[in-house]
Amino acid sequence: MILRFLPGTPEEQVQQVRERLISEGCRVHRSGEGARAILAAVDPPAEALLKELASRPDVERVERPRYPEVLASAAFRDAPSVVRLGQVEIGRSTPSPVLIAGPCGVESAEQVGESARFAAAAGAGVLRGGAYKPRSSPYAFQGLGVEGLRLLKRAGQSVGLPVVTEILDADQLPAFLEHGIDCAQVGARNMQNTSLLKAIARSGLPVLLKRGLAATLEEWLLAAEYLLAHGTTELILCERGIRTFETATRFTLDLTILPVLAERTHLPIAVDPSHAAGKAHLVPALARAAVAAGADALAIEMHPRPVEARSDGPQALLPGELMQLAGEARALGAIVR
Amino acid sequence: MILRFLPGTPEEQVQQVRERLISEGCRVHRSGEGARAILAAVDPPAEALLKELASRPDVERVERPRYPEVLASAAFRDAPSVVRLGQVEIGRSTPSPVLIAGPCGVESAEQVGESARFAAAAGAGVLRGGAYKPRSSPYAFQGLGVEGLRLLKRAGQSVGLPVVTEILDADQLPAFLEHGIDCAQVGARNMQNTSLLKAIARSGLPVLLKRGLAATLEEWLLAAEYLLAHGTTELILCERGIRTFETATRFTLDLTILPVLAERTHLPIAVDPSHAAGKAHLVPALARAAVAAGADALAIEMHPRPVEARSDGPQALLPGELMQLAGEARALGAIVR
Amino acid sequence: MILRFLPGTPEEQVQQVRERLISEGCRVHRSGEGARAILAAVDPPAEALLKELASRPDVERVERPRYPEVLASAAFRDAPSVVRLGQVEIGRSTPSPVLIAGPCGVESAEQVGESARFAAAAGAGVLRGGAYKPRSSPYAFQGLGVEGLRLLKRAGQSVGLPVVTEILDADQLPAFLEHGIDCAQVGARNMQNTSLLKAIARSGLPVLLKRGLAATLEEWLLAAEYLLAHGTTELILCERGIRTFETATRFTLDLTILPVLAERTHLPIAVDPSHAAGKAHLVPALARAAVAAGADALAIEMHPRPVEARSDGPQALLPGELMQLAGEARALGAIVR
Amino acid sequence: MILRFLPGTPEEQVQQVRERLISEGCRVHRSGEGARAILAAVDPPAEALLKELASRPDVERVERPRYPEVLASAAFRDAPSVVRLGQVEIGRSTPSPVLIAGPCGVESAEQVGESARFAAAAGAGVLRGGAYKPRSSPYAFQGLGVEGLRLLKRAGQSVGLPVVTEILDADQLPAFLEHGIDCAQVGARNMQNTSLLKAIARSGLPVLLKRGLAATLEEWLLAAEYLLAHGTTELILCERGIRTFETATRFTLDLTILPVLAERTHLPIAVDPSHAAGKAHLVPALARAAVAAGADALAIEMHPRPVEARSDGPQALLPGELMQLAGEARALGAIVR
Repeated sequence: MILRFLPGTPEEQVQQVRERLISEGCRVHRSGEGARAILAAVDPPAEALLKELASRPDVERVERPRYPEVLASAAFRDAPSVVRLGQVEIGRSTPSPVLIAGPCGVESAEQVGESARFAAAAGAGVLRGGAYKPRSSPYAFQGLGVEGLRLLKRAGQSVGLPVVTEILDADQLPAFLEHGIDCAQVGARNMQNTSLLKAIARSGLPVLLKRGLAATLEEWLLAAEYLLAHGTTELILCERGIRTFETATRFTLDLTILPVLAERTHLPIAVDPSHAAGKAHLVPALARAAVAAGADALAIEMHPRPVEARSDGPQALLPGELMQLAGEARALGAIVR
Repeated sequence: MILRFLPGTPEEQVQQVRERLISEGCRVHRSGEGARAILAAVDPPAEALLKELASRPDVERVERPRYPEVLASAAFRDAPSVVRLGQVEIGRSTPSPVLIAGPCGVESAEQVGESARFAAAAGAGVLRGGAYKPRSSPYAFQGLGVEGLRLLKRAGQSVGLPVVTEILDADQLPAFLEHGIDCAQVGARNMQNTSLLKAIARSGLPVLLKRGLAATLEEWLLAAEYLLAHGTTELILCERGIRTFETATRFTLDLTILPVLAERTHLPIAVDPSHAAGKAHLVPALARAAVAAGADALAIEMHPRPVEARSDGPQALLPGELMQLAGEARALGAIVR
Repeated sequence: MILRFLPGTPEEQVQQVRERLISEGCRVHRSGEGARAILAAVDPPAEALLKELASRPDVERVERPRYPEVLASAAFRDAPSVVRLGQVEIGRSTPSPVLIAGPCGVESAEQVGESARFAAAAGAGVLRGGAYKPRSSPYAFQGLGVEGLRLLKRAGQSVGLPVVTEILDADQLPAFLEHGIDCAQVGARNMQNTSLLKAIARSGLPVLLKRGLAATLEEWLLAAEYLLAHGTTELILCERGIRTFETATRFTLDLTILPVLAERTHLPIAVDPSHAAGKAHLVPALARAAVAAGADALAIEMHPRPVEARSDGPQALLPGELMQLAGEARALGAIVR
Repeated sequence: MILRFLPGTPEEQVQQVRERLISEGCRVHRSGEGARAILAAVDPPAEALLKELASRPDVERVERPRYPEVLASAAFRDAPSVVRLGQVEIGRSTPSPVLIAGPCGVESAEQVGESARFAAAAGAGVLRGGAYKPRSSPYAFQGLGVEGLRLLKRAGQSVGLPVVTEILDADQLPAFLEHGIDCAQVGARNMQNTSLLKAIARSGLPVLLKRGLAATLEEWLLAAEYLLAHGTTELILCERGIRTFETATRFTLDLTILPVLAERTHLPIAVDPSHAAGKAHLVPALARAAVAAGADALAIEMHPRPVEARSDGPQALLPGELMQLAGEARALGAIVR
């Protein structure tokens, strides 16, 4: 159940209703610190209580969510939410989509440092890079681990950018916190790893939640709901291509889902065209399409020297290509946002 | 095999090579009436002949196509091809994508006439509308048939627009020709109806070839190859959404394939976001994304009064929405084309 | 609407109801020549008429179909239907599934004659073989055409087996009838070619309707409904593998759908494991699984000398392999049927 | 690289080669404690060393695996492997597939105890039941946790059956070991949770590895490879349905993959028809098909009173239905194994 108070309802009355719901055994969440308070009870209260609350003079509307997600639903916020990573804001209200750029994997201080400078020069708002790599084969490069976290953060700091990197295991959380990682990425393969989701949520870290390869919109939003229900407050969704019958491209970027997401959730939406395309020369067209479809952020892989990359080199943009793409994204953003 | 002559090679020499290939039993096609002649032999000639031809001083390059399509391949043209429907050109060289707009089905003189006026006012280049409707159920509205062709053409003429409509059976070809239909649409369900493809190709009608619901890129291009091999010279491909596991949208518009198509074929590419979305309010975002991904044309369903539509009303734009979308498409085209 | 009379209701009363429905504008179909008459009105009559009919003393039950198909629904028959091709019966009541065997394509009198003898020796009930081949590429072998029909029928007659072969175009119907083809196969690519379906239905030929590569259960049953609504009386469905993300096999044989079909339709169900597998050594396991899941017939490709086959050789069983498979299918049938 | 010694090669010589490979920096695994030793080096050694080893008189064959998996490949074993859980053996050599039966979730001592008695009476070899439930929604029943492990094990012991249950987090491993859980199930959603795979592998627990909803054959075998490379010695694969476009069933059971698996891996293969079907009355046909396709084990959900089940009740068989299915599976096994 989602209950919207009239704007300006005194906090005391909001707390009164909140306590009433809790006393009836509901788990209650609250949004809207500003003008309008909204309460969500994830266990729907009894019909009689619902009617009673709906008839209060300070309540604008009480509604049952049409979908199983509650805290992730658009109805739980008065406006699309804005996520802050360091000084950067990501959300529907920004004038252009935020560029999240960097190498697939952190390989050395030099490589990630160079990447950071190029990313910053292109106007990126966030630096990305993998320290723990999820690989299909146990024999492939698994990342630099803690050392990768340290190098990534240092590179981000050197250019004043917050950093995002993938987390594979709750055991890695202390290192994420210790090294000041600004945002933990949950990869497609772990989207329904509910143990990991709960642990990250409790840590308070902002999260970039990638969509699973074959996750429906609803499963994805319920994975987001796991995070929100267990404590996450800064959350970005990231579409990265779904698995279909088509083998001419690595994955099929599901941009069709973007306008559906925009009406169903308040969460900001990022798109990662690099993993869907699998080839660098396809990335710009897909990135442009993502912006035009409404993406709030673009996650783009780049590498100062792609041919030397230890993973996913073929899909990494060169610094100059990133620069050009960033300009196009801003121009398109100016039209569609 | 595709053989590119040096620019300026005299026609006589081109014909000499052409006849040589035919005498060896090859079926030969030719493109490039302008500066550079190109020949394609769909049955690869013997290795020795290939070498001999490659060593001719008037031959720039002889190559074996990397993919099974030959006439549809980018290598068979010196530049992306431009299709002319009436006065309208569709292709990568146009400054903005051409809008193909109109109702799902032709229902009455008034409805299609009104649609034509709204489409023209929005700047559409082509009027669309179904006279023969392919329906999943034998009990659903199957279209007005020949009368639909007549009404559509008349509506197109009244506003000076060429018309495109779906063909379901080779028996309908005489009526298409008699009523001056400018372009025959082959629907997703008939993409591999090779009998129909051959018959249309022999008629000489321009074709808009929709991708099958589960057709791979290669199967789609081979369906195009069927048309080209049997006589079609004006051909547009149209992506309209593929079938995936996701049920939140009717189909998943595969924009990921657009940059792949742009490098692999010379054919112009249209995108139909209406059928993928299934809901009108999702159409503009997908249409914008299609333009940004490189679409040369947009096929958009509209209806003067969607609630009265006999088929697919929920996905039809209102005239005002079409107008706004057309403006956005032009603005985006100016940036990305 | 489906209306079941009490067993033994006099024909006169049945006709009375039938005429009443027709007079109200309904298209009415009838099944149950035996003990119990059943009427289906594909246009649902008015509520008042429904109630009136339901209250008749000779009517057992009036129901609205839960799904869009009517004539294909299980409710329209008192028992699963049995299809007769020549002397052979195919349906749920047979003690073991009927084997439909033969080469992918008819290549010569010798090849198809040999195949027919091997098929008969293995206990096959129907001989199959393609005269018109639907090929993805316009440059691949397209079949022997009319000559193929003649050779196939002669081979079938020489061993006393009815024959089934694919039809690609309504223009081929006269030749099918002239050469006494016992059953027309509609291939996966033409499952929604409604013009072809209607033409075949009017010819009265029995039909084997393959499922489209990406056709849902409902679309498949509606394609069957097209045939039944336009005159087909002998109809077999054939599952042949759907397109999924998995590329380790050519298609994924959807046996999960078999028990669903068995409860939803009265039509007999065949399974073609050869096209799904794409490799002969995988066929026996899939054929066994199909029998165990409830298949009423197995369509198996075989060739006297697979390495010489002009199409799909790698998936053809050797005569000895076919013989062994036939024995296993009978043994399994004895347990599960 | 996989190196097969001649049968009877003295252990000393095997160790010599093993050390030689290790000294060259290879990670070496060994199988074949019996008549024939086989070594696998997951990092392919230099070409010169390969040649040297291939020319040894005690070496029968040195081969490079055709696929990325090594330890899971059929070539790494002389015969399909047999997994032992308690007294029960699972593998291709058993006369009939092993039945793994029990409720979706452990709900109470009474419910799981009753289930255990019914499972044992039906001839099941393993008792299953979930203590930790992976649920799409954070608000759904998440299982009894440690108490569930205790109840499940006690129920298994009371009827002399080993038990298998799903693990969601490495933190649960101590409880799994403490309560004597015989086999840890890795669910579809965690198939590529490589952190979890590594932790379980190090624990030495036998594993039942379910296939991910959209995992290719290769990704699944590489997940198995993660387990084998990190210490797992008893491993069973379990097909449970893949996600496709078809919505008439919950998932599509991919039995097409079974004969492919049988030639590509030595690991035993289980099939879970309950989760694919989603409805109890579809389960028997799918279970029979799985046996006929070559399944070594069947994982079947049952419940003494399905309508009271707290999760997945609609797909649980009644005790009598389980009994009948078990008999059919044995009869089919006698024919196909």
